[in-house]
This record gives sequence, structure tokens and C-alpha cells, in this order.
Amino acid sequence: MINDDVIPRRGFSPSEFETRVERAQRIMQRHGLDAIFVTSPPNVRYFTGFDSQFWESPTRPWFVVVPLSGRPVAVIPEIGAPEMALTWMEDIRTWPAPVPEDDGVSLLKATLEGLPRRFGRIGAELGREMSLRMPVIDLFRLRDSLGSEIVDGSPAIWAMRMVKTDAEIAHIHHICTIASAAYAALPGQISIGESEREAVRKLRIDIARRGADATPFMPAISGPGGVPQIVCGPHDRILETGDILFIDTGSTFDGYFCDFDRNYAIGGICAEAARVHEALWLATEAGIAAAVPGATTDAVWQAMSRIIEDAGAIGNNVGRLGHGLGLQLTEPPSHRPGDGTVIVENMVLTIEPGMEYAPGKMIVHEENIAITADGPRLLTRRAPREMPVIR
Amino acid sequence: MINDDVIPRRGFSPSEFETRVERAQRIMQRHGLDAIFVTSPPNVRYFTGFDSQFWESPTRPWFVVVPLSGRPVAVIPEIGAPEMALTWMEDIRTWPAPVPEDDGVSLLKATLEGLPRRFGRIGAELGREMSLRMPVIDLFRLRDSLGSEIVDGSPAIWAMRMVKTDAEIAHIHHICTIASAAYAALPGQISIGESEREAVRKLRIDIARRGADATPFMPAISGPGGVPQIVCGPHDRILETGDILFIDTGSTFDGYFCDFDRNYAIGGICAEAARVHEALWLATEAGIAAAVPGATTDAVWQAMSRIIEDAGAIGNNVGRLGHGLGLQLTEPPSHRPGDGTVIVENMVLTIEPGMEYAPGKMIVHEENIAITADGPRLLTRRAPREMPVIR
Repeated sequence: MINDDVIPRRGFSPSEFETRVERAQRIMQRHGLDAIFVTSPPNVRYFTGFDSQFWESPTRPWFVVVPLSGRPVAVIPEIGAPEMALTWMEDIRTWPAPVPEDDGVSLLKATLEGLPRRFGRIGAELGREMSLRMPVIDLFRLRDSLGSEIVDGSPAIWAMRMVKTDAEIAHIHHICTIASAAYAALPGQISIGESEREAVRKLRIDIARRGADATPFMPAISGPGGVPQIVCGPHDRILETGDILFIDTGSTFDGYFCDFDRNYAIGGICAEAARVHEALWLATEAGIAAAVPGATTDAVWQAMSRIIEDAGAIGNNVGRLGHGLGLQLTEPPSHRPGDGTVIVENMVLTIEPGMEYAPGKMIVHEENIAITADGPRLLTRRAPREMPVIR
Repeated sequence: MINDDVIPRRGFSPSEFETRVERAQRIMQRHGLDAIFVTSPPNVRYFTGFDSQFWESPTRPWFVVVPLSGRPVAVIPEIGAPEMALTWMEDIRTWPAPVPEDDGVSLLKATLEGLPRRFGRIGAELGREMSLRMPVIDLFRLRDSLGSEIVDGSPAIWAMRMVKTDAEIAHIHHICTIASAAYAALPGQISIGESEREAVRKLRIDIARRGADATPFMPAISGPGGVPQIVCGPHDRILETGDILFIDTGSTFDGYFCDFDRNYAIGGICAEAARVHEALWLATEAGIAAAVPGATTDAVWQAMSRIIEDAGAIGNNVGRLGHGLGLQLTEPPSHRPGDGTVIVENMVLTIEPGMEYAPGKMIVHEENIAITADGPRLLTRRAPREMPVIR
């Protein structure tokens, strides 16, 4: 059992990275890949531990090559070498970026061609729920000159990242704990007559004070009895009696996200919204209970969906009822019909039932859980069964 | 002259977007493009005004099509429709994402094929300093079924975005003003014996309090007499007498970035670091003075480089001495030999001379300027000529 008060050590041990790479290599073997190369912040960080906010600058591409055997190789701009040298990585190859004429392409090609060739296939981030962080024209250039075929490596990469290590789960649990405490304290910080934007500013500052590194995601929206959408805002709208204020956050600790929301009744809650809130609270209970090793994401969806339908849902523009999370705010799998992923120990998932109960009036709940051999374990502090009131 | 105390109105008028689109269409005409389609947050925002932190979730692709004539079309997940409807966009087409089997590809294809065909070429974000935010396998699927050729639209898109409107410059100026004030106040907030991480936390909170929306980029590093790199950190390192603390920030207001750093002497500064600091202050002056309409980025680089070389630089792993900024932390052009971009009115640029003067001891200065018909105009409050001291 993890103590809520313990701050996990930042970073991960070299043996953690060795374990990740060994597991990745077993998966690459199954997928018939001689190597994968990754370019995106979460994938680079997963294999190297490299942490930077410099990803905000899209000027220079970065590459990490994970071969079928042996240690990963960093192929990166010179500007990043001093910091990469502080990680567990030993083989760091650099070029003096930016050089638009050849920004790492020939160095990456040489690195890939220096590896043993067995399957003749190299995996890259070409598929679902990830982006390739390099110019596509450079991918074409690489593909046209490389002896091996470049294929979609994302199914292999998701098989690696979808199941977390205990240390990763401790990180996610810590940021969930920070955000849970900040959410619980919010009614003491804001009042009727303040704006959505002001509420978000105060919550952002409080989450930073409590030890979060960053808050890349904090949409907020308010409306009478519910909200029309849950992914944008805040706006300057003033909170008025009868409103529901919805706030969601993906804040981070040492690279790992939480992703859960909370709802607040402004002044008080009407009977209809309270009824829907209760149904969603019960749907969340059902979703959590269904997320056991061996169940599918479809079954988790079904457990929630039944309750939501019975409560009179007229829609839900979210398209699913929860998903994975970790180094990204959202990751596979999705709780939706047809996803079919089998839930296994050490996955981290959101349980996110939501419904529109009248036009433009949506309420959405969300908790984060880790899957253990004994079943689901809450990482967030469970939302109160009665919606907290802001006065 | 913009008053430092005026907060620009959030968002932009419909006529501003009309102007952007008309200018984009003239550029598309020159580049021989029937349309461009964009997928990345800054490009979607540039044409629509759509603001969301939901970009943190990579699950669903979003598309905006800008045709050679007529208004742009949004092709987006249902979850985003209510908020997109609040922008100036009229034609919003949605699908119930996520649907991995066809996440918007056929809807995008139908939209593109509904446009008049003149050049048979569609521009996409395939090139420099931008990423395609959709699965590359879906780009392949689109390319293989589309009647028109998909080509690299990034030179056209950068021609559009590199020259700002007055309203965009007012946004950048505002976030520069906020960050300038927070940087100036920092010595009163931290002391010898605190950590880099603590300094960053205080500066982040102060910048939020002063009205920034977010701080996606705030690397910080300290070291005796200088720092080994400028893009990573903070770490838990304790600030000690003789250190230089380097902090950079890309904070945002209404989507627009500042990007400039400040240096602080811990306890006091040694003669050698003070000499280098003075040289870089003068190099910044020279870089600003050189950034006049009609000059090239090479000439701006040359003006700074001469002073840095004379001061005894042994290296600079940054690879350039400044760049564009706006909706991204870094944008084209680059002040580097061979870039060759001609500077024109309404560009916004960083002036960023830096040098390593002894192994592992680097000092880097940075200011942000807008180009006017009369020459460069500072958007940041000029760094003090003597390095501020933290005691």
C-alpha cells in the first residue's frame, strides 16, 4: 500500500530502464522488428528518463533507437547532449542542429544501418494516439534510402507502455493525491460572482504549491445545471447560482499525468442535476468494480453504459467512457464498444462516465485507478457522493 | 506605441481572421496550392481562433481546411464542436471520434474533394519546424485515395505566419511585459540556499498571478560562473555563492508566447563572468540594431557573432543566435549563416547571443523584438546591464 504522504523519488533507477528495454525487446521480437526509433517526448522519456520542456520548440528533431538487443542509442541535437549525459544512456550521438539540410537524418540512418538485420523491419511512431515529431519529408527521405522497411511501430510501443511498472504507478498516484487535495480545497477559495478563469487560476496556483511540476491541461466550464462540453475553457463567464462548474486536470509530477475532473454546484443544486450526479457516481462505482484483470474494456464500458442509459442519457459527445494514462494525458486503451483490450495487472485507467441529460447540459465524472492482482485500486481520492457547493 | 499596462482583448475579430485567410490565399496562389489542411494546435488556432488545452490528448486528430478561395472548413471530432461553434468558423463538420477504423480520414477526403481543382496540389504540414498531428498511416491512406497530390505546405504556412498582425504583436508584447516584471521581482523572492526547483516554482506562480495563462517552458539551471546547457532543468541543485542562475521562459497569453531568459548572480559575480556578461549585453544591442527591415537573418547573426568571437567564445551548442516566435515558442526564421530570410515589418524575433567561455560555463542573453518600419522595437523590458544579484 502506498502512503499518500510519501513523495516518490524523482527519476527511475538504471535497473528500471533495463527492465523496460528488456520487456520492449521481447515485444519487438513478437512484432518482428529489428529496432524501433522514437521521436516524441513521452516515448523518448520512457526509454531514457530524459526530461525537458524544450519539446515546446519544434525546430530540432530528437531520436532514440531501441534495438532488438543491446542498449538504446540517443541520436540528438548537440544542445541536448549535456543533459542526456546525466541519464542512464551511454551511447549518445549528436549533430549541430538546426541544420535544415540534414537535421539528424543521415546520423539516424547510419545508426539504424549499424544494427544487425534480422526481420528487415524498423518500427516508427506512425499509428494511433501518437505523433511523429520530425518533418514527414525527412521520414520519406529516410525511408527511401534505408535498407530496411519502416513500419508502424505503435502497436508494439503501446504494448510496452500500456502496462506500467510499480514505480510509474507511484508517480501517477502522487500527482493524483496532489490534485485530489487541491480539488477538495477549492470551495474554500472561490465564491459566487468570480469567473471560470479566476477559479482556474487559483486551482493552478494551489496545485503548483502542493508540488505538481506543471498543469498542461485544465479545462473548465460552467453552465446552469450542466455544461455543453468538457475539453475547452475557461472563459470569463461569471459563476452564478444554479450553475455547475466542471474542472478537469492533467497535472504532472516528474512527467506522469493525473487525469480526472470534479464538479461543483454554485449556490446549490437542482433536483434533476442531483439525480444525474447520483447516477454518474454509481456508474463510476460500477466502472471501477468492472475493471478487473481479465475483463475487457468493452465490459467496463458496458457496466457504466447500462446505468447511464437507465438514467436517461440523451447523448455523450466524448465517444468513450475512460482510457489509459501515464506519460500522456490519454493513452490506449479506450473503454468503448469494439476496443476489446484485455485489462491486466499494472494498467492505469480512467473511469469516466458522462451524459447529456438535457440539451447542452452534460455532467461527467472521472477517477483514476491502477489494476492490481486483487482488482482495481483508486489513485484519486474518491469524489464526494454529494456535489460540493460553492457559495 | 503600446501601453505596457493595457491588457489586449482576448481573441481576434472576424475581420482579423478574414485578413489572415485572404493573405494565406494569396500565398497559396503563389505556391500553387488548391488548399492546405492543418492539424497542429498553432495552425488550427491561427486560422480559427480555436483555443483548447485538449491538444494534450493525442487520441483524436483535428483538421482545418483552408481553400484557395472561400472560407475555411473545420473537420473535427464531435467533442470539439460546441466550442468551435463559438469561433468565427461557420462550416464545421464532425465525426464521433475516437473511431480508430476511420478517424476523420474519409470526412477530410470528402471535404478536400469538394473543392475546385486547379493545381491538383494540397499542402500539408510535412516540413520544417512543424509536426503533423495525425497518424502517419492515416496520411498514407488519404494520399493513396485522394485525386490531388499532397505536398509539403510548410513553406507556404511559414510565409503566412512569420509576419504577424498588429493584434498578434500586442498579444506577444503583453506576455513579454508580464514575464519581464516577474523576472525583475525574482531577486526579492529567492535566497542563497534555495534550489533551482524552488526558484522556478516561485517564478511560475508569480507569472500566473500577473496574468499569464500558462508556462509551458521554464528551464532553469545554475553553475559556478555559468551553465553547461540552457534547455533542461530545474534540478534540486542548491544555489551557492559564485553561481549563475539561468532561467528562460516561454509563457503564454491567449496562445502567444514570449521567449526570453534572464541571468542572476548568486552572492556576487566574478570578474570573468562579468566581462562575458558585458560582451553579451553589447552583442544583444548589436543584434537588435541589425534587425531592420531589408536585413537578412545572416546579417543579424554576423552582428552578434563578431562580438562573441572577440570576447573569446569557445563554443555555443545552441546552433543559432535567435529565431522567430509567436503561437510557437520557436518559429522560423533562424539567425544563422545560410538562413538568408529577409527581415520585414511585423516579424517578431528573439535576439539570443550566447557563448561558452570556459568548458561547461555558458552565458546566454535573450530579448524579444518586433520589426517596425522605423526599425526594431523591444517587446521585453531590457535586461539590466549589470547582472542582478541574489543574496
